[in-house]
Amino acid sequence: DYSLKVMDHFSNPRNMGSIENSDGVGEVGNAKCGDIMKIYLKVENNRIADVKFQTFGCGAAIASSSMATEMIKGKTLEEAWKLSNKAVAEALDGLPPIKMHCSMLAEEAIHEAINDYLKKR
Amino acid sequence: DYSLKVMDHFSNPRNMGSIENSDGVGEVGNAKCGDIMKIYLKVENNRIADVKFQTFGCGAAIASSSMATEMIKGKTLEEAWKLSNKAVAEALDGLPPIKMHCSMLAEEAIHEAINDYLKKR
Ligand code: FES
Repeated sequence: DYSLKVMDHFSNPRNMGSIENSDGVGEVGNAKCGDIMKIYLKVENNRIADVKFQTFGCGAAIASSSMATEMIKGKTLEEAWKLSNKAVAEALDGLPPIKMHCSMLAEEAIHEAINDYLKKR
Repeated sequence: DYSLKVMDHFSNPRNMGSIENSDGVGEVGNAKCGDIMKIYLKVENNRIADVKFQTFGCGAAIASSSMATEMIKGKTLEEAWKLSNKAVAEALDGLPPIKMHCSMLAEEAIHEAINDYLKKR
């Protein structure tokens, strides 16, 4: 069963949506389940000023993206890059093993979005 | 990519939620992805007077449950039992093959809920 934190971030996701005129966008697909995750970044002075996500993924993908975006907000790009899906799952008080791959979507999309920002700059 | 109908039922799901004092409840898990679907039925004169669903599943599960519940509302229990996930996917103008298993959740949960109703009666 899911932790209270997972249920909270699933029922009331933080940072869901998109950012107009974002500075970087990352989109990744999950080979295991076919789901998609999109991350939008607003960057100011090398820091994540704002971040939003959109997904077609399951409750575990929504909860871990909600938590991951909360964790990187205000952080430098280097700090945000280092956020692992394991750290996100821990912050959520755990995810079932069969659902760990869902939490990879946010980590990978954040990397893509940071790369997109660095490329455009 | 997903059809317009899938995106519509995903962004604006019909019959999401629960029913207090429902006449039958069905809960099933998806072995393939670990996701869960719960269906609540209100039955009157052998017909589905109301139906609601709750899921932790992905966008395809949400869209197909939204469509499936619309399709069985007002139908007899026998008609509702016969609704297949293939018919639901067709009504949605198709689902990617990798996502067909997600549409099974609604079909199986409807069967469980009807069985639950028949057992209790
Ligand atoms: S991947 Fe689990 S319901 Fe779609």
